[in-house]
Amino acid sequence: MKIVIVGASGTIGKKVTEALRGENEIITVGSKSGDVQVDITSTESIEAFYKQIGSFDALVSVTGNAHFGPLKSMTNADFSIGIQSKLMGQVNLVLIGQRYINPKGSFTLTSGILSDDPIVLGANPSTVNAAIDGFTRAAAIELENNVRINAVSAGVVEDSPHYFPYFPGHIPVSMDRVANAYFKSVFGAITGQIIKVW
Amino acid sequence: MKIVIVGASGTIGKKVTEALRGENEIITVGSKSGDVQVDITSTESIEAFYKQIGSFDALVSVTGNAHFGPLKSMTNADFSIGIQSKLMGQVNLVLIGQRYINPKGSFTLTSGILSDDPIVLGANPSTVNAAIDGFTRAAAIELENNVRINAVSAGVVEDSPHYFPYFPGHIPVSMDRVANAYFKSVFGAITGQIIKVW
Repeated sequence: MKIVIVGASGTIGKKVTEALRGENEIITVGSKSGDVQVDITSTESIEAFYKQIGSFDALVSVTGNAHFGPLKSMTNADFSIGIQSKLMGQVNLVLIGQRYINPKGSFTLTSGILSDDPIVLGANPSTVNAAIDGFTRAAAIELENNVRINAVSAGVVEDSPHYFPYFPGHIPVSMDRVANAYFKSVFGAITGQIIKVW
Repeated sequence: MKIVIVGASGTIGKKVTEALRGENEIITVGSKSGDVQVDITSTESIEAFYKQIGSFDALVSVTGNAHFGPLKSMTNADFSIGIQSKLMGQVNLVLIGQRYINPKGSFTLTSGILSDDPIVLGANPSTVNAAIDGFTRAAAIELENNVRINAVSAGVVEDSPHYFPYFPGHIPVSMDRVANAYFKSVFGAITGQIIKVW
Protein backbone atom coordinates (compact mmCIF):
# COMPACT_ATOMS: atom_id res chain seq x y z
CA MET A 1 0.00 0.00 0.00
CA LYS A 2 1.27 3.48 -0.85
CA ILE A 3 0.67 5.70 2.18
CA VAL A 4 1.21 9.45 2.20
CA ILE A 5 1.69 11.07 5.62
CA VAL A 6 1.36 14.84 5.73
CA GLY A 7 2.93 16.16 8.92
CA ALA A 8 5.13 13.09 9.36
CA SER A 9 7.77 14.94 11.40
CA GLY A 10 5.38 16.19 14.11
CA THR A 11 4.91 14.77 17.61
CA ILE A 12 2.02 12.58 16.50
CA GLY A 13 3.21 12.25 12.90
CA LYS A 14 6.44 10.48 13.89
CA LYS A 15 4.57 7.82 15.87
CA VAL A 16 1.96 7.37 13.17
CA THR A 17 4.67 6.96 10.53
CA GLU A 18 6.35 4.22 12.60
CA ALA A 19 3.03 2.47 13.19
CA LEU A 20 1.98 2.47 9.53
CA ARG A 21 5.32 1.58 7.95
CA GLY A 22 5.28 -2.25 8.01
CA GLU A 23 5.61 -3.53 4.42
CA ASN A 24 4.12 -0.37 2.98
CA GLU A 25 5.55 2.33 0.78
CA ILE A 26 5.54 5.44 2.97
CA ILE A 27 5.87 8.95 1.59
CA THR A 28 6.60 11.47 4.34
CA VAL A 29 5.45 15.01 3.72
CA GLY A 30 6.12 18.26 5.55
CA SER A 31 6.13 21.98 4.97
CA LYS A 32 9.93 21.90 5.02
CA SER A 33 10.92 18.30 5.83
CA GLY A 34 10.09 14.85 4.48
CA ASP A 35 10.29 13.19 1.07
CA VAL A 36 7.98 15.80 -0.45
CA GLN A 37 7.01 19.32 0.63
CA VAL A 38 3.60 20.97 0.58
CA ASP A 39 2.13 24.21 1.89
CA ILE A 40 -1.39 23.11 2.86
CA THR A 41 -2.60 26.73 2.97
CA SER A 42 -2.08 26.98 -0.81
CA THR A 43 -4.31 25.08 -3.25
CA GLU A 44 -1.64 25.53 -5.93
CA SER A 45 0.92 23.86 -3.66
CA ILE A 46 -1.48 20.99 -2.87
CA GLU A 47 -2.21 20.47 -6.58
CA ALA A 48 1.52 20.39 -7.39
CA PHE A 49 2.15 18.02 -4.48
CA TYR A 50 -0.43 15.49 -5.72
CA LYS A 51 0.94 15.70 -9.27
CA GLN A 52 4.38 14.94 -7.87
CA ILE A 53 3.42 11.92 -5.76
CA GLY A 54 0.99 10.38 -8.27
CA SER A 55 -1.78 7.97 -7.28
CA PHE A 56 -1.79 6.57 -3.76
CA ASP A 57 -3.85 4.35 -1.45
CA ALA A 58 -4.01 6.31 1.79
CA LEU A 59 -3.44 9.89 2.80
CA VAL A 60 -2.96 10.56 6.50
CA SER A 61 -3.02 14.19 7.55
CA VAL A 62 -1.48 14.96 10.94
CA THR A 63 -0.98 18.62 10.30
CA GLY A 64 -2.36 22.12 10.59
CA ASN A 65 -2.00 25.08 12.94
CA ALA A 66 -4.61 26.83 15.03
CA HIS A 67 -4.53 29.96 17.19
CA PHE A 68 -4.45 29.72 20.98
CA GLY A 69 -5.35 32.94 22.77
CA PRO A 70 -7.98 34.73 24.84
CA LEU A 71 -11.42 35.13 23.29
CA LYS A 72 -11.59 38.63 24.72
CA SER A 73 -8.98 40.01 22.34
CA MET A 74 -9.35 37.52 19.48
CA THR A 75 -9.54 39.03 16.01
CA ASN A 76 -10.69 37.76 12.65
CA ALA A 77 -7.00 37.50 11.66
CA ASP A 78 -6.19 35.34 14.71
CA PHE A 79 -9.16 33.13 13.98
CA SER A 80 -8.22 32.75 10.33
CA ILE A 81 -5.03 30.90 11.29
CA GLY A 82 -6.92 27.74 12.23
CA ILE A 83 -9.46 28.21 9.47
CA GLN A 84 -6.86 28.49 6.71
CA SER A 85 -4.38 25.94 8.07
CA LYS A 86 -5.86 23.10 10.12
CA LEU A 87 -9.37 23.32 8.60
CA MET A 88 -9.09 24.40 4.95
CA GLY A 89 -5.64 22.83 4.64
CA GLN A 90 -7.09 19.42 5.44
CA VAL A 91 -10.35 20.04 3.52
CA ASN A 92 -8.37 21.00 0.42
CA LEU A 93 -6.17 17.90 0.78
CA VAL A 94 -9.42 15.94 0.34
CA LEU A 95 -11.17 18.13 -2.26
CA ILE A 96 -8.11 18.02 -4.52
CA GLY A 97 -6.87 14.58 -3.44
CA GLN A 98 -10.11 12.84 -4.39
CA ARG A 99 -8.97 13.13 -8.03
CA TYR A 100 -5.65 11.36 -7.31
CA ILE A 101 -6.53 8.68 -4.76
CA ASN A 102 -6.88 5.04 -5.84
CA PRO A 103 -10.27 3.25 -5.63
CA LYS A 104 -10.81 1.88 -2.12
CA GLY A 105 -8.28 4.38 -0.80
CA SER A 106 -8.71 6.36 2.40
CA PHE A 107 -8.23 9.82 3.85
CA THR A 108 -7.53 10.15 7.57
CA LEU A 109 -7.71 13.67 9.01
CA THR A 110 -6.86 15.02 12.45
CA SER A 111 -9.30 16.93 14.63
CA GLY A 112 -9.12 16.82 18.46
CA ILE A 113 -10.92 16.73 21.78
CA LEU A 114 -11.48 20.50 21.98
CA SER A 115 -14.38 20.12 19.53
CA ASP A 116 -16.42 18.77 22.44
CA ASP A 117 -14.47 19.58 25.57
CA PRO A 118 -13.26 23.19 25.42
CA ILE A 119 -10.41 24.81 27.34
CA VAL A 120 -9.69 28.48 28.02
CA LEU A 121 -7.77 30.03 25.08
CA GLY A 122 -9.03 27.31 22.74
CA ALA A 123 -11.97 28.86 20.85
CA ASN A 124 -10.16 28.62 17.54
CA PRO A 125 -9.11 24.94 17.74
CA SER A 126 -12.52 24.03 19.21
CA THR A 127 -14.20 25.53 16.16
CA VAL A 128 -11.77 24.02 13.68
CA ASN A 129 -11.79 20.54 15.22
CA ALA A 130 -15.60 20.42 15.24
CA ALA A 131 -15.58 21.58 11.62
CA ILE A 132 -13.23 18.77 10.59
CA ASP A 133 -15.53 16.25 12.27
CA GLY A 134 -18.55 17.67 10.41
CA PHE A 135 -16.67 17.62 7.11
CA THR A 136 -15.60 14.01 7.67
CA ARG A 137 -19.15 12.80 8.29
CA ALA A 138 -20.41 14.64 5.19
CA ALA A 139 -17.58 13.83 2.77
CA ALA A 140 -17.91 10.11 3.59
CA ILE A 141 -21.34 9.92 1.93
CA GLU A 142 -20.15 11.49 -1.33
CA LEU A 143 -16.65 10.15 -1.99
CA GLU A 144 -16.70 7.87 -5.04
CA ASN A 145 -15.01 4.53 -5.89
CA ASN A 146 -15.31 3.27 -2.32
CA VAL A 147 -12.88 5.87 -1.06
CA ARG A 148 -13.20 6.24 2.72
CA ILE A 149 -12.60 9.12 5.12
CA ASN A 150 -12.25 9.27 8.91
CA ALA A 151 -10.90 11.71 11.47
CA VAL A 152 -8.82 10.91 14.52
CA SER A 153 -9.74 13.08 17.49
CA ALA A 154 -7.25 12.71 20.32
CA GLY A 155 -7.02 14.27 23.74
CA VAL A 156 -3.83 15.97 24.86
CA VAL A 157 -1.05 13.46 24.13
CA GLU A 158 1.57 12.06 26.50
CA ASP A 159 4.43 13.37 24.38
CA SER A 160 3.28 17.02 24.64
CA PRO A 161 3.76 17.82 28.34
CA HIS A 162 4.10 21.55 27.59
CA TYR A 163 0.35 21.49 26.82
CA PHE A 164 -0.68 19.83 30.11
CA PRO A 165 -1.12 23.08 32.11
CA TYR A 166 -3.69 24.27 29.57
CA PHE A 167 -5.72 21.05 29.91
CA PRO A 168 -6.53 20.88 33.65
CA GLY A 169 -7.99 17.52 34.62
CA HIS A 170 -7.45 16.01 31.20
CA ILE A 171 -5.77 12.61 31.29
CA PRO A 172 -3.04 12.53 28.63
CA VAL A 173 -3.52 9.75 26.11
CA SER A 174 -0.75 7.35 25.18
CA MET A 175 0.99 7.72 21.84
CA ASP A 176 0.28 4.05 21.15
CA ARG A 177 -3.46 4.57 21.42
CA VAL A 178 -3.26 7.57 19.11
CA ALA A 179 -1.12 5.75 16.52
CA ASN A 180 -3.54 2.82 16.65
CA ALA A 181 -6.44 5.10 15.76
CA TYR A 182 -4.72 6.09 12.51
CA PHE A 183 -3.84 2.44 11.88
CA LYS A 184 -7.51 1.51 12.33
CA SER A 185 -8.64 4.15 9.87
CA VAL A 186 -6.10 3.16 7.19
CA PHE A 187 -6.25 -0.64 7.45
CA GLY A 188 -9.84 -1.03 8.67
CA ALA A 189 -13.02 -0.54 6.67
CA ILE A 190 -14.93 2.17 8.52
CA THR A 191 -15.85 5.50 6.94
CA GLY A 192 -17.36 8.77 8.13
CA GLN A 193 -16.23 8.04 11.67
CA ILE A 194 -14.61 10.25 14.26
CA ILE A 195 -12.19 7.92 16.03
CA LYS A 196 -12.03 9.34 19.53
CA VAL A 197 -8.91 8.76 21.61
CA TRP A 198 -10.02 10.37 24.89
CA MET B 1 -34.72 44.10 26.85
CA LYS B 2 -33.00 45.38 23.71
CA ILE B 3 -32.81 42.49 21.24
CA VAL B 4 -30.94 42.65 17.95
CA ILE B 5 -31.98 40.13 15.29
CA VAL B 6 -29.57 39.69 12.39
CA GLY B 7 -31.36 38.01 9.51
CA ALA B 8 -34.79 39.11 10.71
CA SER B 9 -36.37 38.95 7.25
CA GLY B 10 -35.48 35.31 6.55
CA THR B 11 -37.77 32.27 6.77
CA ILE B 12 -36.71 31.54 10.34
CA GLY B 13 -35.86 35.16 11.18
CA LYS B 14 -39.43 36.34 10.66
CA LYS B 15 -40.85 33.77 13.07
CA VAL B 16 -38.12 34.40 15.62
CA THR B 17 -38.75 38.14 15.47
CA GLU B 18 -42.47 37.59 16.14
CA ALA B 19 -41.72 35.22 19.01
CA LEU B 20 -39.24 37.52 20.73
CA ARG B 21 -41.09 40.81 20.31
CA GLY B 22 -43.36 40.91 23.39
CA GLU B 23 -42.57 44.03 25.40
CA ASN B 24 -39.01 44.17 24.11
CA GLU B 25 -37.21 46.66 21.95
CA ILE B 26 -36.44 44.78 18.75
CA ILE B 27 -33.86 45.94 16.22
CA THR B 28 -34.18 44.06 12.94
CA VAL B 29 -31.04 43.74 10.88
CA GLY B 30 -30.43 42.52 7.36
CA SER B 31 -27.92 42.84 4.56
CA LYS B 32 -30.39 45.07 2.70
CA SER B 33 -33.57 45.16 4.82
CA GLY B 34 -34.43 45.90 8.45
CA ASP B 35 -33.84 48.81 10.80
CA VAL B 36 -30.08 48.57 10.36
CA GLN B 37 -27.91 46.96 7.68
CA VAL B 38 -24.76 44.89 8.06
CA ASP B 39 -22.55 42.84 5.77
CA ILE B 40 -21.48 39.99 8.09
CA THR B 41 -18.61 39.03 5.76
CA SER B 42 -16.91 42.37 6.55
CA THR B 43 -15.43 43.07 9.99
CA GLU B 44 -15.51 46.79 9.18
CA SER B 45 -19.24 46.58 8.49
CA ILE B 46 -19.84 44.63 11.73
CA GLU B 47 -17.84 47.18 13.74
CA ALA B 48 -19.82 50.07 12.19
CA PHE B 49 -23.08 48.20 12.81
CA TYR B 50 -22.36 47.76 16.54
CA LYS B 51 -21.31 51.42 16.86
CA GLN B 52 -24.62 52.38 15.28
CA ILE B 53 -26.89 50.24 17.50
CA GLY B 54 -25.01 50.85 20.77
CA SER B 55 -25.21 48.53 23.75
CA PHE B 56 -27.80 45.76 23.72
CA ASP B 57 -28.97 42.77 25.76
CA ALA B 58 -29.34 40.00 23.21
CA LEU B 59 -28.05 39.37 19.73
CA VAL B 60 -29.81 36.68 17.73
CA SER B 61 -28.13 35.64 14.50
CA VAL B 62 -30.32 33.81 12.01
CA THR B 63 -28.14 34.48 9.03
CA GLY B 64 -25.33 33.26 6.82
CA ASN B 65 -24.96 31.47 3.51
CA ALA B 66 -23.31 28.18 2.72
CA HIS B 67 -22.57 26.38 -0.54
CA PHE B 68 -24.66 23.40 -1.64
CA GLY B 69 -23.07 21.30 -4.36
CA PRO B 70 -21.37 17.98 -5.17
CA LEU B 71 -18.20 17.15 -3.26
CA LYS B 72 -16.73 15.75 -6.46
CA SER B 73 -16.36 19.17 -8.07
CA MET B 74 -16.19 21.34 -4.96
CA THR B 75 -13.43 23.95 -4.92
CA ASN B 76 -11.79 26.01 -2.22
CA ALA B 77 -13.77 29.01 -3.52
CA ASP B 78 -17.07 27.14 -3.21
CA PHE B 79 -16.17 26.05 0.28
CA SER B 80 -15.17 29.56 1.32
CA ILE B 81 -18.76 30.75 0.89
CA GLY B 82 -19.92 29.02 4.04
CA ILE B 83 -16.67 29.70 5.87
CA GLN B 84 -16.76 33.44 5.24
CA SER B 85 -20.52 33.93 5.61
CA LYS B 86 -22.31 31.51 7.95
CA LEU B 87 -19.22 30.64 10.02
CA MET B 88 -16.92 33.68 10.21
CA GLY B 89 -19.87 36.06 9.86
CA GLN B 90 -21.38 34.70 13.04
CA VAL B 91 -18.02 34.26 14.81
CA ASN B 92 -17.14 37.89 14.08
CA LEU B 93 -20.55 39.04 15.34
CA VAL B 94 -19.47 37.53 18.69
CA LEU B 95 -15.76 38.49 18.67
CA ILE B 96 -16.61 42.13 17.96
CA GLY B 97 -19.98 42.15 19.74
CA GLN B 98 -18.51 41.05 23.09
CA ARG B 99 -17.24 44.64 23.46
CA TYR B 100 -20.74 46.11 22.99
CA ILE B 101 -23.08 43.65 24.73
CA ASN B 102 -24.47 44.45 28.19
CA PRO B 103 -23.52 42.33 31.23
CA LYS B 104 -25.78 39.25 31.46
CA GLY B 105 -26.49 39.62 27.75
CA SER B 106 -26.66 36.71 25.32
CA PHE B 107 -25.61 35.68 21.84
CA THR B 108 -27.70 33.11 19.99
CA LEU B 109 -26.22 31.69 16.79
CA THR B 110 -27.66 29.39 14.15
CA SER B 111 -26.08 26.11 13.12
CA GLY B 112 -28.16 23.16 11.85
CA ILE B 113 -28.75 19.42 11.74
CA LEU B 114 -26.24 18.78 8.92
CA SER B 115 -23.43 19.03 11.48
CA ASP B 116 -24.39 15.54 12.63
CA ASP B 117 -26.70 14.17 9.97
CA PRO B 118 -25.23 14.85 6.52
CA ILE B 119 -27.00 14.95 3.16
CA VAL B 120 -25.62 14.68 -0.36
CA LEU B 121 -24.43 18.12 -1.59
CA GLY B 122 -24.10 19.35 1.98
CA ALA B 123 -20.38 19.04 2.84
CA ASN B 124 -20.00 22.79 3.21
CA PRO B 125 -22.95 23.41 5.58
CA SER B 126 -22.09 20.23 7.52
CA THR B 127 -18.63 21.61 8.17
CA VAL B 128 -19.81 25.10 8.99
CA ASN B 129 -22.65 24.00 11.28
CA ALA B 130 -20.35 21.72 13.27
CA ALA B 131 -17.86 24.58 13.52
CA ILE B 132 -20.50 26.93 14.94
CA ASP B 133 -21.39 24.33 17.56
CA GLY B 134 -17.72 23.95 18.54
CA PHE B 135 -17.28 27.71 18.73
CA THR B 136 -20.38 28.07 20.90
CA ARG B 137 -19.18 25.49 23.44
CA ALA B 138 -15.75 27.15 23.62
CA ALA B 139 -16.80 30.81 23.66
CA ALA B 140 -19.22 30.11 26.53
CA ILE B 141 -16.36 29.40 28.94
CA GLU B 142 -14.55 32.66 28.16
CA LEU B 143 -17.22 35.34 27.71
CA GLU B 144 -17.03 37.84 30.57
CA ASN B 145 -19.63 39.67 32.66
CA ASN B 146 -21.98 36.67 32.64
CA VAL B 147 -22.61 37.00 28.95
CA ARG B 148 -24.07 33.78 27.56
CA ILE B 149 -23.92 32.08 24.15
CA ASN B 150 -25.95 29.25 22.61
CA ALA B 151 -26.62 27.92 19.14
CA VAL B 152 -29.91 26.74 17.73
CA SER B 153 -29.53 23.71 15.48
CA ALA B 154 -32.72 22.96 13.58
CA GLY B 155 -33.65 20.28 11.10
CA VAL B 156 -35.19 21.21 7.77
CA VAL B 157 -38.06 23.57 8.63
CA GLU B 158 -41.72 23.29 7.67
CA ASP B 159 -41.67 26.63 5.87
CA SER B 160 -38.90 25.60 3.46
CA PRO B 161 -40.59 22.88 1.36
CA HIS B 162 -38.19 23.53 -1.54
CA TYR B 163 -35.48 21.91 0.62
CA PHE B 164 -37.47 18.73 1.38
CA PRO B 165 -36.23 16.72 -1.66
CA TYR B 166 -32.65 17.19 -0.48
CA PHE B 167 -33.48 15.83 3.00
CA PRO B 168 -34.92 12.38 2.29
CA GLY B 169 -36.48 10.85 5.38
CA HIS B 170 -36.03 13.98 7.45
CA ILE B 171 -39.17 15.03 9.30
CA PRO B 172 -39.59 18.81 8.88
CA VAL B 173 -39.70 20.66 12.18
CA SER B 174 -42.43 23.15 13.03
CA MET B 175 -41.62 26.85 12.98
CA ASP B 176 -43.03 27.14 16.49
CA ARG B 177 -40.51 24.66 17.86
CA VAL B 178 -37.69 26.52 16.13
CA ALA B 179 -38.82 29.94 17.36
CA ASN B 180 -39.12 28.52 20.88
CA ALA B 181 -35.50 27.41 20.80
CA TYR B 182 -34.36 31.00 20.21
CA PHE B 183 -36.78 32.18 22.91
CA LYS B 184 -35.26 29.67 25.33
CA SER B 185 -31.74 30.86 24.60
CA VAL B 186 -32.59 34.57 25.00
CA PHE B 187 -34.90 34.42 28.03
CA GLY B 188 -33.48 31.32 29.74
CA ALA B 189 -30.19 31.01 31.59
CA ILE B 190 -28.30 28.26 29.76
CA THR B 191 -24.95 28.84 28.08
CA GLY B 192 -22.64 26.86 25.82
CA GLN B 193 -25.57 24.73 24.69
CA ILE B 194 -26.55 23.50 21.25
CA ILE B 195 -30.34 23.64 21.32
CA LYS B 196 -31.32 20.87 18.94
CA VAL B 197 -34.67 21.09 17.17
CA TRP B 198 -34.65 17.74 15.36
